[in-house]
Amino acid sequence: MKVSIKDTTRIGLIKAGRRIIVEKGYNHTGIQEVLQTVGVPKGSFYHFFSSKEDFGLEIINHDAKAHDMVLEQYLGDKTLTPLARLQRYFEEKCQEFESLQYREGCLLGNLGQEMADQNETFRARLQEVFAGWRDRFADCLEQAQEAGEISPQWDARELAEYCLNSWEGTLLQMKITKSVIPLKAFMRLTFGTVLKN
Amino acid sequence: MKVSIKDTTRIGLIKAGRRIIVEKGYNHTGIQEVLQTVGVPKGSFYHFFSSKEDFGLEIINHDAKAHDMVLEQYLGDKTLTPLARLQRYFEEKCQEFESLQYREGCLLGNLGQEMADQNETFRARLQEVFAGWRDRFADCLEQAQEAGEISPQWDARELAEYCLNSWEGTLLQMKITKSVIPLKAFMRLTFGTVLKN
Repeated sequence: MKVSIKDTTRIGLIKAGRRIIVEKGYNHTGIQEVLQTVGVPKGSFYHFFSSKEDFGLEIINHDAKAHDMVLEQYLGDKTLTPLARLQRYFEEKCQEFESLQYREGCLLGNLGQEMADQNETFRARLQEVFAGWRDRFADCLEQAQEAGEISPQWDARELAEYCLNSWEGTLLQMKITKSVIPLKAFMRLTFGTVLKN
Repeated sequence: MKVSIKDTTRIGLIKAGRRIIVEKGYNHTGIQEVLQTVGVPKGSFYHFFSSKEDFGLEIINHDAKAHDMVLEQYLGDKTLTPLARLQRYFEEKCQEFESLQYREGCLLGNLGQEMADQNETFRARLQEVFAGWRDRFADCLEQAQEAGEISPQWDARELAEYCLNSWEGTLLQMKITKSVIPLKAFMRLTFGTVLKN
């Protein structure tokens, strides 16, 4: 696949926007700041994105796509049992946040917190992305139930919903406490009580 | 206790600030907007608060104090068993968010999401408040363990940490989905798997 200068600039803007938004939030991020980071004139920005909102949505889509690939990498790994795949996915995420010194958290969770009451387009798109992740977890948990690794007592979708939400709250507290404690509690209790036979 | 006009104005500013910040976030809230809502001139604001940051901290303290009273009301209710107290507390919170049409979420969680990487004073104060809530939950869970209502297998503080974090993530997803589903999953799985004998 040939990548044009146009594509490179567009992706450069998305990545720079992501970096600033994950730290400062969407409302507090100015387009001017993004442009300065990439060294692109203002006219170019509106060549790629129709508005700041459109830019924000493209950042969400970019993150969602990247995360879908990570999920596929871990949850699609047939060399492990379904439950072990999920555990490995979360272990890797924990390590990633340790190396980030417990900053940032989940960009889409951050945006949901900031924007869900303010912007219906963002809210609806974020709901869609999280539903996709939950369904991916639910598939894996259903397989774990079929394999007898976890109890079939609970609906796999509800289990997935619960685990995903707990994880998002864990990342929030990790960010506030700047410590590994929330991550450790999540791993221990999710795999020691919720996802058990 | 006599409440002076001065106190009334101060509390009026804090409540108005809270209402705006819980919807728009701290960075996106202007002092001017708060003053207009209450009908107070700018000079008065700096009579009560030394800066916007000081104002934000006072809003955190106000919320923390109000929530401490709610926790005392529910978790201090000796007519119920320890586990039933905790369950009733969460049931009441669920009803409160249903009546808010799943908006707002937890102000202090929102502020943590927005500010933890940006402002060390906010971060440290939020960590302190959440630690207080976790300890309150942990006391109650320890009593539930002593009463034989939940398994003594896990450390009560870690259980409390996990439940509080799951709850914060639940509120985030409730806000994004504008639905009762995350709340229902939280209640069902927290009390059906994590807090069990």
